[in-house]
Amino acid sequence: MKTEQTEKLYFASDYMEGTLPAILQRLTETNLVHSAGYGADEFSASARQKIREACCAPEADVFFLIGGTQANATVIDAMLRPYQGVIAAATGHISVHEVGAVEAGGHKVIPLPQESGKLSAEAIRSCAGTYWKDETREHMVMPGLVYLSQPTEYGTLYSLEELRAISAVCREYSMGLYVDGARLAYALACPENDVTLPDLAALCDTFYIGGTKCGALFGEAVVFPKHDTVPHFFSIVKQHGALLAKGRIAGIQFDTLFTDNLYEQAGKTAIAAADRIRAALKEKGYRLTIDTPTNQIFIALDPEQLQKLSERVEMGFWENRPDGTTVMRIATSWATSKEDTDRLIAAL
Amino acid sequence: MKTEQTEKLYFASDYMEGTLPAILQRLTETNLVHSAGYGADEFSASARQKIREACCAPEADVFFLIGGTQANATVIDAMLRPYQGVIAAATGHISVHEVGAVEAGGHKVIPLPQESGKLSAEAIRSCAGTYWKDETREHMVMPGLVYLSQPTEYGTLYSLEELRAISAVCREYSMGLYVDGARLAYALACPENDVTLPDLAALCDTFYIGGTKCGALFGEAVVFPKHDTVPHFFSIVKQHGALLAKGRIAGIQFDTLFTDNLYEQAGKTAIAAADRIRAALKEKGYRLTIDTPTNQIFIALDPEQLQKLSERVEMGFWENRPDGTTVMRIATSWATSKEDTDRLIAAL
Amino acid sequence: MKTEQTEKLYFASDYMEGTLPAILQRLTETNLVHSAGYGADEFSASARQKIREACCAPEADVFFLIGGTQANATVIDAMLRPYQGVIAAATGHISVHEVGAVEAGGHKVIPLPQESGKLSAEAIRSCAGTYWKDETREHMVMPGLVYLSQPTEYGTLYSLEELRAISAVCREYSMGLYVDGARLAYALACPENDVTLPDLAALCDTFYIGGTKCGALFGEAVVFPKHDTVPHFFSIVKQHGALLAKGRIAGIQFDTLFTDNLYEQAGKTAIAAADRIRAALKEKGYRLTIDTPTNQIFIALDPEQLQKLSERVEMGFWENRPDGTTVMRIATSWATSKEDTDRLIAAL
Amino acid sequence: MKTEQTEKLYFASDYMEGTLPAILQRLTETNLVHSAGYGADEFSASARQKIREACCAPEADVFFLIGGTQANATVIDAMLRPYQGVIAAATGHISVHEVGAVEAGGHKVIPLPQESGKLSAEAIRSCAGTYWKDETREHMVMPGLVYLSQPTEYGTLYSLEELRAISAVCREYSMGLYVDGARLAYALACPENDVTLPDLAALCDTFYIGGTKCGALFGEAVVFPKHDTVPHFFSIVKQHGALLAKGRIAGIQFDTLFTDNLYEQAGKTAIAAADRIRAALKEKGYRLTIDTPTNQIFIALDPEQLQKLSERVEMGFWENRPDGTTVMRIATSWATSKEDTDRLIAAL
Repeated sequence: MKTEQTEKLYFASDYMEGTLPAILQRLTETNLVHSAGYGADEFSASARQKIREACCAPEADVFFLIGGTQANATVIDAMLRPYQGVIAAATGHISVHEVGAVEAGGHKVIPLPQESGKLSAEAIRSCAGTYWKDETREHMVMPGLVYLSQPTEYGTLYSLEELRAISAVCREYSMGLYVDGARLAYALACPENDVTLPDLAALCDTFYIGGTKCGALFGEAVVFPKHDTVPHFFSIVKQHGALLAKGRIAGIQFDTLFTDNLYEQAGKTAIAAADRIRAALKEKGYRLTIDTPTNQIFIALDPEQLQKLSERVEMGFWENRPDGTTVMRIATSWATSKEDTDRLIAAL
Repeated sequence: MKTEQTEKLYFASDYMEGTLPAILQRLTETNLVHSAGYGADEFSASARQKIREACCAPEADVFFLIGGTQANATVIDAMLRPYQGVIAAATGHISVHEVGAVEAGGHKVIPLPQESGKLSAEAIRSCAGTYWKDETREHMVMPGLVYLSQPTEYGTLYSLEELRAISAVCREYSMGLYVDGARLAYALACPENDVTLPDLAALCDTFYIGGTKCGALFGEAVVFPKHDTVPHFFSIVKQHGALLAKGRIAGIQFDTLFTDNLYEQAGKTAIAAADRIRAALKEKGYRLTIDTPTNQIFIALDPEQLQKLSERVEMGFWENRPDGTTVMRIATSWATSKEDTDRLIAAL
Repeated sequence: MKTEQTEKLYFASDYMEGTLPAILQRLTETNLVHSAGYGADEFSASARQKIREACCAPEADVFFLIGGTQANATVIDAMLRPYQGVIAAATGHISVHEVGAVEAGGHKVIPLPQESGKLSAEAIRSCAGTYWKDETREHMVMPGLVYLSQPTEYGTLYSLEELRAISAVCREYSMGLYVDGARLAYALACPENDVTLPDLAALCDTFYIGGTKCGALFGEAVVFPKHDTVPHFFSIVKQHGALLAKGRIAGIQFDTLFTDNLYEQAGKTAIAAADRIRAALKEKGYRLTIDTPTNQIFIALDPEQLQKLSERVEMGFWENRPDGTTVMRIATSWATSKEDTDRLIAAL
Repeated sequence: MKTEQTEKLYFASDYMEGTLPAILQRLTETNLVHSAGYGADEFSASARQKIREACCAPEADVFFLIGGTQANATVIDAMLRPYQGVIAAATGHISVHEVGAVEAGGHKVIPLPQESGKLSAEAIRSCAGTYWKDETREHMVMPGLVYLSQPTEYGTLYSLEELRAISAVCREYSMGLYVDGARLAYALACPENDVTLPDLAALCDTFYIGGTKCGALFGEAVVFPKHDTVPHFFSIVKQHGALLAKGRIAGIQFDTLFTDNLYEQAGKTAIAAADRIRAALKEKGYRLTIDTPTNQIFIALDPEQLQKLSERVEMGFWENRPDGTTVMRIATSWATSKEDTDRLIAAL
């Protein structure tokens, strides 16, 4: 007989379940309504308008793509000229975990050292400055865009001050600024966070609001705060295989996410659980390897701890460390229940 | 007051509604089940197995991609070496309606003349033969793959005999054979069709079973009947931005489509409606421009007919003809109701 | 003993010998002069200036690339945005004989029917017009550039009137116009030709003046009549592997070609020989398959003629015709001697 | 009046003059000989045979390309599958000075830390090992090839032992090994060097013998020791715009370089001069920043030294250092005269 105590607890990632119930309900209600294809439907139009309002960016162009790698490859390709590359943290998603999709599009990812997953304005300035001061720069890849993730792959956050400084460097060196918001809901829901959607719209040339990891079935909303930043972006999306025939499916999801503040609410569920788990971990003497305020928590476990905890909890493997410990990731999400959080804390 | 008579009838395309109710139901039932990401979940495994069985291809590799252009670009790129191109009908989807996605991947689409959207084995043999006989062929693009659609963009079907002949030419010239099955359910459901899934598996190197236009929310199942036809295809899919984090969403859909024969049933609904409409059109003297047995019907309308019918029925624009008529497409789908079909016939 | 009569006569192509003696002499004289690399040398500067003057284009940017396929791929890639393609004759060099180099750069070659190797303004207008009138054009490749060759691959010439008409269509549809002048010297030297270098500069967005087939060891001078037509073109050239470290080697050649009218003189040698051969062929009843005024002559030979003439003369194979004849190309060049021309005529 | 003392001495690079006199002479002698195009000529055949013999690689395929960036981009593209990248020193030419030509071909350059421009077998093993041990490696770029330069961009040399160790790691992890020999003559001519052409042929999958920087007008000989390592490489070369119509021009140069040991002799001229300069620099107390045995010497100059020496000697700028010194490069070449070397030493 299976007892509650022996059931596995799932904290490996934030894309292990389906979708927010409100989204399923809306898909069901609208299922047989007829609509135009390729994003020309009324649901997508409504979602775009709500996102514009949430961003205080009335002129913004908004496109619904399907996944993060696809959004990154499509946007970066569209924003760069052939001789340009994109600056990213050496630990950035495009640097490591997209099978070179940016390079497959013809562009170098220029990796910079990071701290807790974050780039500093100074590191970016130094990279761009070095390029522009170099007399042989015409033989080199020109930095044309800066890629950040908010939160980062390590769950950390850029502060508004940091983002402003980076944005200023970008403008100084005529580089675009692009923010990957795959987990943006978990940033927006953090008390520590002071970067709002309107801030992103004011400081970036483009960014995406992640759906896949924040409660949608799939989907990422790419926002260009200035109209026509990339002429013919629709065709570029289509060429990248990123255009949904039934664009409404993405539109309905984002329309729901941006109704009654659902997107941020989904984030808050995850952050509340993560905060409780973080407090319990600290109390019980676990070693957190990085100070993150969002839905990802990284702990270094010695072999015994690892074995014991793994029996009960599915966590994400992060890395083996020279000191013999293993870093594991505990991720909460919109789907994390109070009960599972209680059980996890009890199991620590 | 809006009366039934004046309500618009929607026959413009086969991707204007959501999805088959059974799919929505299954997504709802499984919504909070935990599963692994990127297609490693149990739903996707089950769907793969059912597809292997339906294709009598026990060794087949099956991947779930999101859309047709994406599937075409990814598969074609994976099947070709840099100096090779893909033969396609001049009217093929990859030739015309994908913003050059195949070329963006570095490969020439070699367009051949077609008849009713179909390529002949002879035209393919002539193209390949001309290349291999040319002494300067090392300066030319080598035909490395043949692309067909079943049904074609014009709604027509290859017969088993035709497909066998094309497959034989491909083997003779060491070219792969790839079939785009975006609307495959509407072929499989046709009484006139004699090409089964096992036939496709036996005669093609790869093909895809279309979901998006055949009742899924989205999704295409790419089948390689021989295991490891393309080593590391998973990574190629990821690089193309075609990998779903929540792979289960596609897996659940195809698992449902291949349960209780739902995929072919979805096709039959459309074909039954199309057959009734075709009969009515012929009876009322409309001019069908092409003889199609599937869910797409093409009629040439004079300006007066066009205006009258368009008021009541949303059709798809196809082309203007020199004789002053306009060719419009009437498409039925899995979602076409008997009532709407009745109304359309009454409106003719 | 080898006698004069049995020596082979070489008329297969125009790149079978080394270079104009004046070029070898100049390379020898300057051999040990020190100069800057990558085209920043004084020879290249002088060559650029002479080309600007010859083109009456004082602001022109001039770059020296190495070969024709490379020049085409680099220029076309630089002139197009990702969603755009290039219109070319179905018989154009980029359409047939460059192993898909344009597609490898991500762009579709949109092939149009031709007559004697030439595109008409009407065919171009129709293609561009069809695109812009199509409501689904955002799913299609946008025609962004027109590619012509002067002379064409069939040795024919565009008249000034024809070129003006094509240039006007390009401006009307916001497409660039690019002329491949691989054999331009043989056009400029023709009495029938009325398109001058200043005409090309006035009517095109970019064109190249061919060296390889017109008496240089190698090299093509890419001309952009308007300064900064393509920002950072130097870097694009480098990225395409088309930048010579010893740029001077190309610079010296073009500086020599544009001194004392050598370029056009080189063409005149070829045309004078070709005109004599054409007259002799006609007099002796040979069938010319196309009416060309330049250095390429195409004749249809029956098997007996073919065997007899091939014993004495190396010609270029062009195609087998359904009527059993073989079309062969006789090409003269800057290196064709009066004596060899006499011998060829005697051998006819 | 210009006196000897005030004449500039040119030591900035090794591609500032034309070519070895023997090459010019051979080009002149053969200038009007007829030959086939695209490398099918007798001169290229002879050069290929001599290179096979020099490499003790009787089955080797040899192709003559035009420049280094082009050779790198073409070879790397041909050796990799789409999901693979190339490991290189962070200071490697492909990492820094080719405007991202490798990325433009779709592949990531995986940069590794270096010492004096060199990669260690251990660093390569660690990179490949990390990839293969990573459970998420299917989301990452697979290391498929290792790129080295011999000599490196810093003028240093791999020893035979080091190269053997690297070759062993490559075989262990199924990666190709490619050596960029842009300045190979200057390695082969070094007494310190113990890596011969047969060693390269035995240990590498492919390498190129540099002509441009070693006394040719231009040209690099790409060697694949095993026949048909890359099927259809000719077409790949053509597609990359790297195929010379007058292939003989490269063939004649390499045929001359590999006659009477001219290639290594050209190197020896440079090394003899460099050795004298190195000795003088050390004697006079200059600070050499790196210990190089080849034709490139790097010295750190304080501002006063820099100004004084720059007035007389054209050197290559390398970098500014935090301590206020400037690193300059002195490069000798096949063209460096004893007289200029004397003058340079006198000016130190």
